[in-house]
Amino acid sequence: MNDPLTSAPNDSAAQPLARYAAWRRAGDFIFLSGVIAVNPAAKLIVRSFDDIPLDAQALLGRSGEFSTDLREGPILAQSWYVLNSIRATVEAAGAQMSDVVKLVQYFKHLDHFPHYSRVRKLFFPGEPPTSTVVEVSGMLPTADILIEVEATAYVPLAAPSR
Amino acid sequence: MNDPLTSAPNDSAAQPLARYAAWRRAGDFIFLSGVIAVNPAAKLIVRSFDDIPLDAQALLGRSGEFSTDLREGPILAQSWYVLNSIRATVEAAGAQMSDVVKLVQYFKHLDHFPHYSRVRKLFFPGEPPTSTVVEVSGMLPTADILIEVEATAYVPLAAPSR
Amino acid sequence: MNDPLTSAPNDSAAQPLARYAAWRRAGDFIFLSGVIAVNPAAKLIVRSFDDIPLDAQALLGRSGEFSTDLREGPILAQSWYVLNSIRATVEAAGAQMSDVVKLVQYFKHLDHFPHYSRVRKLFFPGEPPTSTVVEVSGMLPTADILIEVEATAYVPLAAPSR
Amino acid sequence: MNDPLTSAPNDSAAQPLARYAAWRRAGDFIFLSGVIAVNPAAKLIVRSFDDIPLDAQALLGRSGEFSTDLREGPILAQSWYVLNSIRATVEAAGAQMSDVVKLVQYFKHLDHFPHYSRVRKLFFPGEPPTSTVVEVSGMLPTADILIEVEATAYVPLAAPSR
Amino acid sequence: MNDPLTSAPNDSAAQPLARYAAWRRAGDFIFLSGVIAVNPAAKLIVRSFDDIPLDAQALLGRSGEFSTDLREGPILAQSWYVLNSIRATVEAAGAQMSDVVKLVQYFKHLDHFPHYSRVRKLFFPGEPPTSTVVEVSGMLPTADILIEVEATAYVPLAAPSR
Amino acid sequence: MNDPLTSAPNDSAAQPLARYAAWRRAGDFIFLSGVIAVNPAAKLIVRSFDDIPLDAQALLGRSGEFSTDLREGPILAQSWYVLNSIRATVEAAGAQMSDVVKLVQYFKHLDHFPHYSRVRKLFFPGEPPTSTVVEVSGMLPTADILIEVEATAYVPLAAPSR
Amino acid sequence: MNDPLTSAPNDSAAQPLARYAAWRRAGDFIFLSGVIAVNPAAKLIVRSFDDIPLDAQALLGRSGEFSTDLREGPILAQSWYVLNSIRATVEAAGAQMSDVVKLVQYFKHLDHFPHYSRVRKLFFPGEPPTSTVVEVSGMLPTADILIEVEATAYVPLAAPSR
Amino acid sequence: MNDPLTSAPNDSAAQPLARYAAWRRAGDFIFLSGVIAVNPAAKLIVRSFDDIPLDAQALLGRSGEFSTDLREGPILAQSWYVLNSIRATVEAAGAQMSDVVKLVQYFKHLDHFPHYSRVRKLFFPGEPPTSTVVEVSGMLPTADILIEVEATAYVPLAAPSR
Amino acid sequence: MNDPLTSAPNDSAAQPLARYAAWRRAGDFIFLSGVIAVNPAAKLIVRSFDDIPLDAQALLGRSGEFSTDLREGPILAQSWYVLNSIRATVEAAGAQMSDVVKLVQYFKHLDHFPHYSRVRKLFFPGEPPTSTVVEVSGMLPTADILIEVEATAYVPLAAPSR
Amino acid sequence: MNDPLTSAPNDSAAQPLARYAAWRRAGDFIFLSGVIAVNPAAKLIVRSFDDIPLDAQALLGRSGEFSTDLREGPILAQSWYVLNSIRATVEAAGAQMSDVVKLVQYFKHLDHFPHYSRVRKLFFPGEPPTSTVVEVSGMLPTADILIEVEATAYVPLAAPSR
Amino acid sequence: MNDPLTSAPNDSAAQPLARYAAWRRAGDFIFLSGVIAVNPAAKLIVRSFDDIPLDAQALLGRSGEFSTDLREGPILAQSWYVLNSIRATVEAAGAQMSDVVKLVQYFKHLDHFPHYSRVRKLFFPGEPPTSTVVEVSGMLPTADILIEVEATAYVPLAAPSR
Amino acid sequence: MNDPLTSAPNDSAAQPLARYAAWRRAGDFIFLSGVIAVNPAAKLIVRSFDDIPLDAQALLGRSGEFSTDLREGPILAQSWYVLNSIRATVEAAGAQMSDVVKLVQYFKHLDHFPHYSRVRKLFFPGEPPTSTVVEVSGMLPTADILIEVEATAYVPLAAPSR
Repeated sequence: MNDPLTSAPNDSAAQPLARYAAWRRAGDFIFLSGVIAVNPAAKLIVRSFDDIPLDAQALLGRSGEFSTDLREGPILAQSWYVLNSIRATVEAAGAQMSDVVKLVQYFKHLDHFPHYSRVRKLFFPGEPPTSTVVEVSGMLPTADILIEVEATAYVPLAAPSR
Repeated sequence: MNDPLTSAPNDSAAQPLARYAAWRRAGDFIFLSGVIAVNPAAKLIVRSFDDIPLDAQALLGRSGEFSTDLREGPILAQSWYVLNSIRATVEAAGAQMSDVVKLVQYFKHLDHFPHYSRVRKLFFPGEPPTSTVVEVSGMLPTADILIEVEATAYVPLAAPSR
Repeated sequence: MNDPLTSAPNDSAAQPLARYAAWRRAGDFIFLSGVIAVNPAAKLIVRSFDDIPLDAQALLGRSGEFSTDLREGPILAQSWYVLNSIRATVEAAGAQMSDVVKLVQYFKHLDHFPHYSRVRKLFFPGEPPTSTVVEVSGMLPTADILIEVEATAYVPLAAPSR
Repeated sequence: MNDPLTSAPNDSAAQPLARYAAWRRAGDFIFLSGVIAVNPAAKLIVRSFDDIPLDAQALLGRSGEFSTDLREGPILAQSWYVLNSIRATVEAAGAQMSDVVKLVQYFKHLDHFPHYSRVRKLFFPGEPPTSTVVEVSGMLPTADILIEVEATAYVPLAAPSR
Repeated sequence: MNDPLTSAPNDSAAQPLARYAAWRRAGDFIFLSGVIAVNPAAKLIVRSFDDIPLDAQALLGRSGEFSTDLREGPILAQSWYVLNSIRATVEAAGAQMSDVVKLVQYFKHLDHFPHYSRVRKLFFPGEPPTSTVVEVSGMLPTADILIEVEATAYVPLAAPSR
Repeated sequence: MNDPLTSAPNDSAAQPLARYAAWRRAGDFIFLSGVIAVNPAAKLIVRSFDDIPLDAQALLGRSGEFSTDLREGPILAQSWYVLNSIRATVEAAGAQMSDVVKLVQYFKHLDHFPHYSRVRKLFFPGEPPTSTVVEVSGMLPTADILIEVEATAYVPLAAPSR
Repeated sequence: MNDPLTSAPNDSAAQPLARYAAWRRAGDFIFLSGVIAVNPAAKLIVRSFDDIPLDAQALLGRSGEFSTDLREGPILAQSWYVLNSIRATVEAAGAQMSDVVKLVQYFKHLDHFPHYSRVRKLFFPGEPPTSTVVEVSGMLPTADILIEVEATAYVPLAAPSR
Repeated sequence: MNDPLTSAPNDSAAQPLARYAAWRRAGDFIFLSGVIAVNPAAKLIVRSFDDIPLDAQALLGRSGEFSTDLREGPILAQSWYVLNSIRATVEAAGAQMSDVVKLVQYFKHLDHFPHYSRVRKLFFPGEPPTSTVVEVSGMLPTADILIEVEATAYVPLAAPSR
Repeated sequence: MNDPLTSAPNDSAAQPLARYAAWRRAGDFIFLSGVIAVNPAAKLIVRSFDDIPLDAQALLGRSGEFSTDLREGPILAQSWYVLNSIRATVEAAGAQMSDVVKLVQYFKHLDHFPHYSRVRKLFFPGEPPTSTVVEVSGMLPTADILIEVEATAYVPLAAPSR
Repeated sequence: MNDPLTSAPNDSAAQPLARYAAWRRAGDFIFLSGVIAVNPAAKLIVRSFDDIPLDAQALLGRSGEFSTDLREGPILAQSWYVLNSIRATVEAAGAQMSDVVKLVQYFKHLDHFPHYSRVRKLFFPGEPPTSTVVEVSGMLPTADILIEVEATAYVPLAAPSR
Repeated sequence: MNDPLTSAPNDSAAQPLARYAAWRRAGDFIFLSGVIAVNPAAKLIVRSFDDIPLDAQALLGRSGEFSTDLREGPILAQSWYVLNSIRATVEAAGAQMSDVVKLVQYFKHLDHFPHYSRVRKLFFPGEPPTSTVVEVSGMLPTADILIEVEATAYVPLAAPSR
Repeated sequence: MNDPLTSAPNDSAAQPLARYAAWRRAGDFIFLSGVIAVNPAAKLIVRSFDDIPLDAQALLGRSGEFSTDLREGPILAQSWYVLNSIRATVEAAGAQMSDVVKLVQYFKHLDHFPHYSRVRKLFFPGEPPTSTVVEVSGMLPTADILIEVEATAYVPLAAPSR
């Protein structure tokens, strides 16, 4: 079985929802647009465990109990999807998750933070990035979106890093 | 007739509303403060088409119909004013709009996004920057403000740095 | 008597509230996580003048009048605590407050801005950083938090700066 | 390719959702019931661009950008559907769109008016009817409905009218 | 026993609550003012089954169960009272219920529609009129009013007009 | 001094705010669009006594007391402006106020009804039209609008009326 | 016919609703408790024109129109009842309405002020007292209360006043 | 044991929370500032039975039942504290509780009135003062304050006045 | 330069907004009506620093920063205007600010208290009056009003009375 | 005089408001439906002291003061009515109040608990039952209902108990 | 055709949504968990007529009119599903619907009660159980749930009942 | 180290907060009052991890991260405290947790269910009881209470009953 934290192919990389760049390199830095749990190509908005791969569901501890999964599924699935997209996007830009030095995280409901925080640890087993967290009134494209994450990575050009 | 996207003189550059810098260069980067549709010198808060130049009004498609213009005017005029200020500020800092690599955009109402998005395309005909969009509860200085945009530009210094 | 703007020992530096880095150096830049008026080690959330040192209280103009201090104390004390933490954190990273080039400031209530703005001037007597200000719905860890500030400093590596 | 403003077959005519007449002729007048973007036979409530024909989508300027289309699609698609149903109903009653002399238009959100107004112009290229517009609390059958339009047409019976 | 749908004497006709006409004939048309469940002469506002005749109560299926009747009584009784007033008014104007060609119906709560719809069928056993239904914020004279109905009848004058 | 109820020149007639007809004749009927207290040519929205002629102010009983006039002025001035526009429009269409047979009146706040009702009596000293009154959530073009009135007049063509 | 402003017998004087004094003389001053439109002996709360004498109704301009009277009746009737109670109470204390030098007036809705103001003028045809007006959240005993008025009179003891 | 209604030492007198006088004598009158249940010297805001003396708790009928005391304690304890402060203040000014001729009482929630009323009777066993009661949106210094009472006493100076 | 605390001419005295007295002398007392920041003669409602004299702006510490002045200006300017009106009114009545013995202050938002309190100190450098402060739902004439102050002065008549 | 706690005749027993059993015996247990303060036969909803017998009013401490009785009457009268109905119902089922072993109590406002609790003690002078208390959004039949109590009694069949 | 009240196979019995028992026998009693209109195995939440069998739709009187069915369908379908699940569960436990002695019914909106009540009568043609009804803020698993019913049955062990 | 699920001494048993029984045996059943996370003897309301024993904290997975613990601590600690009290109460009544056959669980926020559900599994490792879950508006004694649980146990008396 493959590892849900590393196996996602490059097509997991975030796709722009409007006319903007998913990422831009500027000198030694890679800037990512804010990422949400949406696949515009498939017109998919992640709303539950069912919208992410089975191994990711298992990784996040889907309980199999209807009420619990319906309550916790949305934020857990979106957290995984967003961080997985960031990972795929960073890799598409030639970097790795450990190169991410900064995250700005927007929540619809701050009570979701503990769930997100547990998922984030899975994606940053080593030195974690800096982090800013605030609760906002809404995010694009619809009211289903519970979290948006903006990442910045540092990947020096000159030297053959790592 | 002059082009409303390029003709604004340098005094269109954003003016701080309090004690902070409109922009700062740090190495190869130029950071701009969040820009809103306000001209503090003129004590002007942009609230309608009437608060921007005629050619900009035309560019944005002012319809001449009272109800439509009163409904769409505020966000269109503010979007133009803000992006034009960013353009003028970036130029004052010795760069160009195409050097902007990152935008963080705060909205009062996300339903305004399509209007803003159309205006943004006019200012970034080439490679677009990365983009983060969230809806917040409010912005300075008053409740009239519908949008605030924070830009970052990448302009390598003279020498091949590093 | 010591100066409340400079005397805080290094243990004033911001402490992460979850698994993330308080700051990360990336090339010539130092990124700080969003800072709030909380000391997780002491399980302290700053809620009034009583939660900050006496000389800081005096610096902020504590009036000694019960109603006034109960109304203005929370934002003044949090503003001081947050900016003092940023100062200590920046110093722990080998830089100074004047190296801070960018601030993103999140408020619970924008009416607090004038109070914060006066405190900020005390910490940036010289060239101020760029600034973005928005009002958000909430911040971590609890509803007592009135302000969160995210700072970025520029400290070139190459030259022995300062 | 056929014209989305004229090609809809007669089965586009409005279908009653309860026990009432879709239209009634009374002397020289044809009264239409209030029309909403619903096809009760197909149990369809129009909620997005995907619920209307492709050529209509193009006519309305579907942008292809996920966020923009999700925000503007509902009102544009409902506006087209409703006016197209009115056209088909009027034609089923032996009249034409130019015979419509009066419209009463109910909106869920008046900010939708400019979008509706642009669509309406497409259906009334000649002399427009009179118009009343108000914002109401809700419409049948569900909260998805954004607009309802009631039309009255004048079609003299006996004589070759004016 | 008399029929609650036909037996109401002419004094059931709607009485104006202010200075306006209960109905006006204009050519072949009879316009009625919006009718509510109020008898201004008796200073009566219909609020429950008890405010309408016994045979009407039976017709509407009063259950005799306290909670059910208190919940459904207001809308059922008002629906009957309003439609009965329209019938009496139309008859006073020399027409019949089957001459009514158009109804505009305003509701306080659209969840009341199914109840009203069942009552309306009793009054229009033949060809039904056209119908427009919206939910509004309120109606005259007080917040007790749940429904207002405006009717238009078509009654050609003596001669075969036009 | 001229009579504020009759002296308004024809340019008082309602002007469309978007692409629709201010009025349309259909057979013996004249349909007016919903009229609000706005002069789109002058970009004027009536908000107080100061926005209507002096003799109209006197007619409406402006008290000269600041608080009273600020509270009652908006609805009284809008009521006069709207009914005066209807009068001018009807006259422009070759009819008179006494030919109006039907009014549909939309209010922002039903507590305004008594004020409007007193003004309406001034414009209809003879046989009044039918009347429907409801409270809606909003009207075009802005939240300042307190009332909208839709009128229908009956003016037979055949005979040289009056 | 008797004058509704002077004819009320002494039993119109305000009755305490709890254990407090309706009025107290202190030196040259007479202090009245806040007066509301309630007759505790009769368990009456004034809610409409019907709760005050006929001549008072006429004095206040009851229109006889159902909707208008239901909307304006409550504040007009309460205003009259309260000021009439103050008059009777002041007289019971050996003074007259013209001795009242100060009024503090609490409203549930400030839009009621013009109505109250007109009634007040009837009770103070001569030199008016000073006046303070604010809108509060509620008054005793129930939510039906729209206004409370607290009066202070000046009646020098020594000299044979007036 | 001492009497909780009379035994409080003079230091129970109300202390100003800002720069104002706790009381002022003006001729034969003593005016007190509005009193709330706060001891600014001790930084105490009375929030429960535990914040007042034991004998006062007994006097007020503390039930010893957790839920009841938590629900009724705040208003009962504040009522006692406020009236006791007024008593001490009046005595400090050389007068007695029976000299108080007027009370203005502001409540956060009028449902608290019966509780306050019972406490007030204990402090005014003789002739009660006049009384005005309203519910306001808030009081200083914090949202914990449930009641504020402003008292006026009449204490003729030296000579046996009038 | 003249002193903004003393130089205002007598026409700064409060003007009634309706039919009531701005002040009344009753024995040794002068009662003032509640004063708000309005000049009815000039139809001016004080909304910002710009509505008060330049020296008053300076006295209140206008910062010159757009956001700060827009946030703090309204309450500071209204506080100054109201207290200055009271001063002028008291002087017009032959007394001085130091004769004021009692203030009742109504706020729209209690968070404004510290600002008002600082202004009040400027007007009462000597012995301060008693003070009552509450937050109410609204004040006349419009929602722009943030504060209303009612003052009472004690000015013994000619002879050393009593 | 009879005892309001014991004298109620059997017709005080709870009457079903819809099709359900007021009580059912199941083995040794007697289950009661939730009881509210309603007498469906008399179409009475208990809203004040006036709706219960005089001796019950006295027992509950009706104060005779208008404001206090209007505020506390509803919950005290409903508490008594409900518990008295339970007593009568239990007795009709052949048991006594002391056989009640369990109560589930639903409140509209938990601030009513202390009042209810005092009434409950009167009905359970001996060993009290178990108790669950929650606040719910509403109860049948109308919004006047403040409390609903569901009781379970234990009355062994076999032995001739008590 | 089979009877929708009796034909449902045992797999209609309620399935737990989390770790709890659908039912437990304890002595002569059978306790059921609260039942909602959810089939966790099929991941189905009942939201309309379409989610229940055709014969059940007919039994409940599906009207075939779009608006009526969309408004009444949800509560009727959930009522049927829940009571049918209870029936199946009780039968699975070896009892019958007539053995149910107690129901506790939680509603999202009490206006749904009459609909539920009619359905309940179908399931309890004989002696009905006791009943408690309250409106709560929400139920598991999602906001779609309109009703939850908890049943208790009495089925003596000893005797071969029925 | 002792087991937090079994080691609590009997004084953990629930204590009544008012006059009611913590539990009552009735035949083979033990009824418990609704239990909340309160220790009335210690005047303790459980609000965080710090209010429960260290081993219970560990059992519940306290993370040590400030934000996470502040967000999840309240519901986890209350869940443990309530279930532990039920366990102790049941044991005090001579039964065991496995004898509990029914739970009714009231939540303040249903999003807390998954957390509670995980804790409940720890207390019922064997056959679980039946369960009803609803969200209510509030619980006693204060708004801090997040959950209340009512349990029923089945413990046949001495003889093998029936």
